[in-house]
Amino acid sequence: MSTPETTLPSERIAQAFSPTNLRALGHRLIDLLSSHLAEIEASGTRVLNWNEPAENIARASQILAAAPQDPPSPEALVERFEKLAGEMLARGHNLHDPRYIGHQVPAPVPLAGLFDALGAITNQVMAIYEMGPWATSVERAMIARLGARLGWAEGAFAGLVTHGGSLGNLTALLTARNVSLGDAWERGLSGRTPPPVILVQQDSHYCVARAAGVLGIGTEQVVRVGLDERRRMDPQRLDEAITDLRARGVPIVAVSAAACATPIGAFDPLDQIAEVCQKHDVWLHVDAAHGGAVLLSRQHRHRLRGIDQVDSLVWDAHKMLFVPALCAFVFYRDAEHRQATFRQEAGYLFDPSVPELADFDSGTATVECTKRAATYGLWGTWSLFGEQLFEDMVDVTFDMTWRLYERLQSESDFEPLHEPQCNILAFRYVPPALRRAPEEEVGRFLLALRRELIRSGEFYIVQAKIADRQALRLTIINPLTQAAHLEGLVSAIRRTGETLL
Amino acid sequence: MSTPETTLPSERIAQAFSPTNLRALGHRLIDLLSSHLAEIEASGTRVLNWNEPAENIARASQILAAAPQDPPSPEALVERFEKLAGEMLARGHNLHDPRYIGHQVPAPVPLAGLFDALGAITNQVMAIYEMGPWATSVERAMIARLGARLGWAEGAFAGLVTHGGSLGNLTALLTARNVSLGDAWERGLSGRTPPPVILVQQDSHYCVARAAGVLGIGTEQVVRVGLDERRRMDPQRLDEAITDLRARGVPIVAVSAAACATPIGAFDPLDQIAEVCQKHDVWLHVDAAHGGAVLLSRQHRHRLRGIDQVDSLVWDAHKMLFVPALCAFVFYRDAEHRQATFRQEAGYLFDPSVPELADFDSGTATVECTKRAATYGLWGTWSLFGEQLFEDMVDVTFDMTWRLYERLQSESDFEPLHEPQCNILAFRYVPPALRRAPEEEVGRFLLALRRELIRSGEFYIVQAKIADRQALRLTIINPLTQAAHLEGLVSAIRRTGETLL
Repeated sequence: MSTPETTLPSERIAQAFSPTNLRALGHRLIDLLSSHLAEIEASGTRVLNWNEPAENIARASQILAAAPQDPPSPEALVERFEKLAGEMLARGHNLHDPRYIGHQVPAPVPLAGLFDALGAITNQVMAIYEMGPWATSVERAMIARLGARLGWAEGAFAGLVTHGGSLGNLTALLTARNVSLGDAWERGLSGRTPPPVILVQQDSHYCVARAAGVLGIGTEQVVRVGLDERRRMDPQRLDEAITDLRARGVPIVAVSAAACATPIGAFDPLDQIAEVCQKHDVWLHVDAAHGGAVLLSRQHRHRLRGIDQVDSLVWDAHKMLFVPALCAFVFYRDAEHRQATFRQEAGYLFDPSVPELADFDSGTATVECTKRAATYGLWGTWSLFGEQLFEDMVDVTFDMTWRLYERLQSESDFEPLHEPQCNILAFRYVPPALRRAPEEEVGRFLLALRRELIRSGEFYIVQAKIADRQALRLTIINPLTQAAHLEGLVSAIRRTGETLL
Repeated sequence: MSTPETTLPSERIAQAFSPTNLRALGHRLIDLLSSHLAEIEASGTRVLNWNEPAENIARASQILAAAPQDPPSPEALVERFEKLAGEMLARGHNLHDPRYIGHQVPAPVPLAGLFDALGAITNQVMAIYEMGPWATSVERAMIARLGARLGWAEGAFAGLVTHGGSLGNLTALLTARNVSLGDAWERGLSGRTPPPVILVQQDSHYCVARAAGVLGIGTEQVVRVGLDERRRMDPQRLDEAITDLRARGVPIVAVSAAACATPIGAFDPLDQIAEVCQKHDVWLHVDAAHGGAVLLSRQHRHRLRGIDQVDSLVWDAHKMLFVPALCAFVFYRDAEHRQATFRQEAGYLFDPSVPELADFDSGTATVECTKRAATYGLWGTWSLFGEQLFEDMVDVTFDMTWRLYERLQSESDFEPLHEPQCNILAFRYVPPALRRAPEEEVGRFLLALRRELIRSGEFYIVQAKIADRQALRLTIINPLTQAAHLEGLVSAIRRTGETLL
């Protein structure tokens, strides 16, 4: 056995970079993952492996501290790797369990993760075309393909991929700010009066109002547009709000609509909203992070009627296109706008001798400089299975949500709070004993019930407040979830509720 | 053979989610990657596989369009996957080739990518603790470990991980803006006079001035602080600039220093800069995306003297900690500041019944809502090999850069433009025929030479302008690069130059 003093740096490095070790550990990983997935998909274990933060963090730190001083032998390395990977799986979240029906984060197509891994292990990145020629091209091909589904003509529009819907919304709203306010990029927002505002769907994801804070607009300059009875932005109220702002000379950065909004998955009437925005010449942005995927479903694409009329939108592939996080698309109807977000050069990056390549440098249009090959998973899955798989996954998960809705309607102790507009459902469970209890007590009960449910590992669902009432909320975002699992959920909620009372 | 009409959606979904298919395709991927890596590391092929954007994009689109209408048989699926993966590798960039010495993007430890893949395939994400309890804990353990190297006491400081150094700098400068300007988050920057400014190292990465544009400060409000003869921020000039701004009543958002700056890798004298900032009570941020890693090297950590005195910093693990993109750390000396970036709630995310868990919700401190388990690769590599490997990789790549510097100094047609301060080296190659040529001609020659060199696949280096002079630039960021490869670079540059003349 060698000691730290006798092992040369080059030996340690050779071990870490060894193709032979990659082969040995890689095969072990694939076996572990495949067995794990089989167990998880069969719903044979806990959905969420709950441990308190202090316990988990102490364990993660302990493992770091126990790292060897010197490289282990090849056999010991495999053994050590297997232990690490096993512990990572044992303490993780099992999104592929059909009883995982929680946040808007899918049980992804596992094979998509293989394409992603190819990019990670070889570290394919972008910023300028020459650093990631194939990564850039795969991204461009996906942008063209999805853009066509938006109803836009090739060459007229532009797109980019970024690390998440929040960053995507920030990017698009930054572009809107720069275009709407003219010189905001160079001069900033200082000195402007009255302060510019942004109009948002009342139920918008928190990142939209947050973008106003980030961009120097200020969260107090966020105007929330009222909803109709299905929690969709009311075009009439939007028209009135814009008319009023214009009359007072208040600059408008953008209108941010939702397709769909997070709480109950409501799709704004984009065609009518676009008409209002066009009438007033206001930038229309749509957060379609979750709902963009309905464009691939013949049954559900009508929900996005009018999407071809918006100025910008966000569409997350890591939601309803079922690829691992993160892969968010930003689209601009007018291709020119992709260059309005930032207005800069970096001499060491962008080569002035090849201006014809500049259009393919991703870094000019994204917050990221170095960017992962984030579309490898989507492009690979699409290339393996074709578009039909994506339509199937949308249709199957939406359909299952309607079935659950109808099921809950038939039970007196369950109250669905809305007819589904996609695969999100908010509902209440109020057992007979609490039927006359004050709202606050019911709210506490529902929060406690959910926490008990997820800590037990039996199901994973989330919570939400809908119109000031506490609700349970779920997203059927695992295409493996069947009616029998949902039947199990009804029982589990009742059983857990009883224990609590 | 089934037709699209006869294949049920559930059959297609079952095939895509099949653990058996994951096993078959996964093993095939590992074999492909391992063989590929062996070939690449032996420097037996081209570094960069150059194809024009139009050709690459057409190919990526063609593959998408050729996707099957119906799922193939298991054997056909493996075959199709193998073709796809093979094409992805054949058209990608080979960062593990020792002749890749280009941007500040490493040839990563391949095994780090396996840990990353575990996270991707099972889709471990964060935003709130309960979605990624282990992902959160691994991140927290790494923050504690790296924070200790910064010289800070446990519990006093805070950190987070985000998708890249640019996003990290934006996040930290947003925090600085909110803290320095008081109510900028709520009220925005509108109406403020005189406009606030930000002071930056003259050679800062473009993302720093860009952050001023994003945050509503305005790129015209970026004050560039002059450099000393080693291209480091001059503390004396900084002191004068702040004194002058204060005298004029101009609010200062922050000083942004660099450790190191991109063009030649200069490390600002942080101890002296911190002293100036403390004297004037100005927020000091440091972009240590590249240089943070010297803290793990006994030989080089002196370059970051004073880092414990800064208010915030960015440290990219996907640079000199040699993990795949993206894994960028943001640190705040004062733990309280992690909550100053955003000031919001999202009812459906953050559960008020368990306030003790809120501190572990990553989404309150990062631009991302859903966030990848971005530290899996770093934590896994560290746990396998210990801290020593990271010190080795820093020392070996830095040392090789000094060796190249000395080598180039001894040649009359090469001119290193600076003594290295890390593993970045900018230099010029001026053959005898161009010795009396005007600067513009030499500049064009160097750009053409580099482009020819990288398109040939023989080497991958980059370019930069240093004090208005065109230069070649490289980063020895592959620990497998040896002196013999650098000797080959000298020859390749001369040979390519001759062909051009």
